[in-house]
Amino acid sequence: MTRSLGVLGEDWTFLILREALTGTTRFAEFRSALGIAADVLSRRLSMLVKYGVMYQEPYREPGSRTRYEYHLTDAGRELEVVLGALQQWGDKHLPWPDGPTVQRRARRTDRQVHVAFVDDLGYEVPWADVATVRTDAYPEEETPKQADEVAG
Amino acid sequence: MTRSLGVLGEDWTFLILREALTGTTRFAEFRSALGIAADVLSRRLSMLVKYGVMYQEPYREPGSRTRYEYHLTDAGRELEVVLGALQQWGDKHLPWPDGPTVQRRARRTDRQVHVAFVDDLGYEVPWADVATVRTDAYPEEETPKQADEVAG
Repeated sequence: MTRSLGVLGEDWTFLILREALTGTTRFAEFRSALGIAADVLSRRLSMLVKYGVMYQEPYREPGSRTRYEYHLTDAGRELEVVLGALQQWGDKHLPWPDGPTVQRRARRTDRQVHVAFVDDLGYEVPWADVATVRTDAYPEEETPKQADEVAG
Repeated sequence: MTRSLGVLGEDWTFLILREALTGTTRFAEFRSALGIAADVLSRRLSMLVKYGVMYQEPYREPGSRTRYEYHLTDAGRELEVVLGALQQWGDKHLPWPDGPTVQRRARRTDRQVHVAFVDDLGYEVPWADVATVRTDAYPEEETPKQADEVAG
């Protein structure tokens, strides 16, 4: 998770991704939607490209120089689940007076979707029934501790 | 989501929450597990208490003054889904050489769980089939745009 946060944790990055997930691709559109400074936006987009979350595609409007659109890669589009989980938490625990600003629906069925834990048989598991267990790859501490000893 | 990020987006906050979700409650334990400066840790824990993500509980060890443990509220424990989604994304797209550092299992069945979109009938929906649709509560822009026109 530390690595994900290294890429995603910087100011603006999540908001840029939220815009991208609703279809924004052009620099000027990101700028006007977010009110973000051009140099910060430029640095964040470059970082997202470097980490394989977005890719650039040239376009040219009549009479203008070649510019670039920023599209999400598949890895980038998979962040929909992370953003969905964040928004769902905010909608419940820090709600706006007017209600949620976005909803998510399955394109095929138009049914509303939420983010949840699902087991390998496809059954939803309530968050309160989920235990986080450290693997052998967990960085060592001075006082080793089994996650489940305390949380379980 | 902007609100969730206001609370959760600061440096260290996610890492503190990850520790808390695996059972850490005491100031000294957070410090040694994270290698975080005491004043930063103190400010982050206070903020998490202020926003109802954690609560304090006094404890006293023999011969010591009263200290406080930091426990997650139900709202805080629900962040398990957000952290699970982040870790899952990182494990897939920015993997460690030794593999994932934590796993999540259903306590009741011991089956491994993952984070996914689920519709109101309980069926898992692939992320690529999920459309994000802006509601009437979405902040207005200069050039209104339907999310689905572009992303759909």
